[in-house]
Amino acid sequence: MQFTSETSSNGVVERSFTLDEITGVLWSPTSGTVGAPLLLSGHSGGMHKKAPGLVAGALHSVTTDGYTVAAIDAPGHGDRPRNLQDQQWVEAIRQARTAGEPIAPIVVDYSRSVAVRAVPEWRATLDALQALPEIGVDAPVGYGGVSLGVVTGLMLAAVEPRIAAVSFGGVFVDDALIEAAGRLTVPVEYRIPWDDEEYDRASGIALFSAFGSKEKSLHAYSGRHYPVPEYERDSSARFFTRHLGRAAVDSD
Amino acid sequence: MQFTSETSSNGVVERSFTLDEITGVLWSPTSGTVGAPLLLSGHSGGMHKKAPGLVAGALHSVTTDGYTVAAIDAPGHGDRPRNLQDQQWVEAIRQARTAGEPIAPIVVDYSRSVAVRAVPEWRATLDALQALPEIGVDAPVGYGGVSLGVVTGLMLAAVEPRIAAVSFGGVFVDDALIEAAGRLTVPVEYRIPWDDEEYDRASGIALFSAFGSKEKSLHAYSGRHYPVPEYERDSSARFFTRHLGRAAVDSD
Repeated sequence: MQFTSETSSNGVVERSFTLDEITGVLWSPTSGTVGAPLLLSGHSGGMHKKAPGLVAGALHSVTTDGYTVAAIDAPGHGDRPRNLQDQQWVEAIRQARTAGEPIAPIVVDYSRSVAVRAVPEWRATLDALQALPEIGVDAPVGYGGVSLGVVTGLMLAAVEPRIAAVSFGGVFVDDALIEAAGRLTVPVEYRIPWDDEEYDRASGIALFSAFGSKEKSLHAYSGRHYPVPEYERDSSARFFTRHLGRAAVDSD
Repeated sequence: MQFTSETSSNGVVERSFTLDEITGVLWSPTSGTVGAPLLLSGHSGGMHKKAPGLVAGALHSVTTDGYTVAAIDAPGHGDRPRNLQDQQWVEAIRQARTAGEPIAPIVVDYSRSVAVRAVPEWRATLDALQALPEIGVDAPVGYGGVSLGVVTGLMLAAVEPRIAAVSFGGVFVDDALIEAAGRLTVPVEYRIPWDDEEYDRASGIALFSAFGSKEKSLHAYSGRHYPVPEYERDSSARFFTRHLGRAAVDSD
């Protein structure tokens, strides 16, 4: 893991990094990270590691709870080249939107393909993050994601016992995702944007029903998938502090 | 309104009161109530003004946000005599439970009858509370309730413009309740105990869909209707502070 830039403002250090082909960013409190939980944040399809909603959530967790937050570009997103098949999916989604046709079937296939590639990248990133002296192997780890980030997170949580809690936003649901949800065992909070016509409410409820976790919460809110209401962002941060704790921030 | 007893502990003053046939209780911070929002709290069927979950929520709002909280016994509940028809409903529910038959049809009729009688009592109670110098007419007013308390709250909010926000727990849903929900215009937070076999999930979702309010949130949580998880109680209090504000508590 190589850090390529570092800036600091409003109590938050932002460091860009690369790890082989992966491009990522790490946010942490300037006041230090002793005992800080680590949050992995997965962006939605078509977005990138500094998607506005992702950054807003990350800064909230860093400044309010002293968390360290990491985000990486999914394959073919952000600073990473897009291969031919991904380009074709993106073009197919664009054409479906233009034609007023449902995009869900295409998004589901595309997300799954990207997520399969992203899971080993997240695991390698987590290894590298835990090797940093300021994080270490004892930091509790959570994962938060939206859309593509949910597909990735469910596949990641299934193979990665270091993930102790997950917080998800809206996602296109298919049978494979329902099946993956059934294997989830860690606490989960799941949000549905109730007035977003692109997300089918019934399949969102079905996904929530399918989560195998003993503790699960569904939050449906009036509005669309972006922006997430501030009170929901706040709720997500509180969910993580319930399950991962809070950093011993020296606020003096 | 006549106060019949007053006790004080842990920063909370608890005063019992009567108003004609109504028996109620009022909780407020010992530190004073200047600018304190007023929360009306409706208990579930078979419970009373000091139901454990109701009291826990009330004490939380008083100590955390400086609220004044009022609860009254529904007709035929708590310290109030139960008429013959109510006794028959209660007995029918008991028999259905014993026989393993669904109680929802009986509860729906019983709740509606009690709620019709409770609505004018809540309005009279609110008049009397606003006539108290320590509350006044400028205090923002919210309503929280569970089960019977939801039926009452929906009928109350429909005729009572002083109710500015409502937070509801699980309830048995029928067509009349769905229709009442469609007339609701104030912000609403609604909780469904996802693993409570007595509450039908689909009709709970239908009720949420029906709320006419521009801002509405659904929270489904793993578990039964009691106890409500502490984080949901906390969320409800935060919902009210978003919409009603917080008291200017002198914490010194």
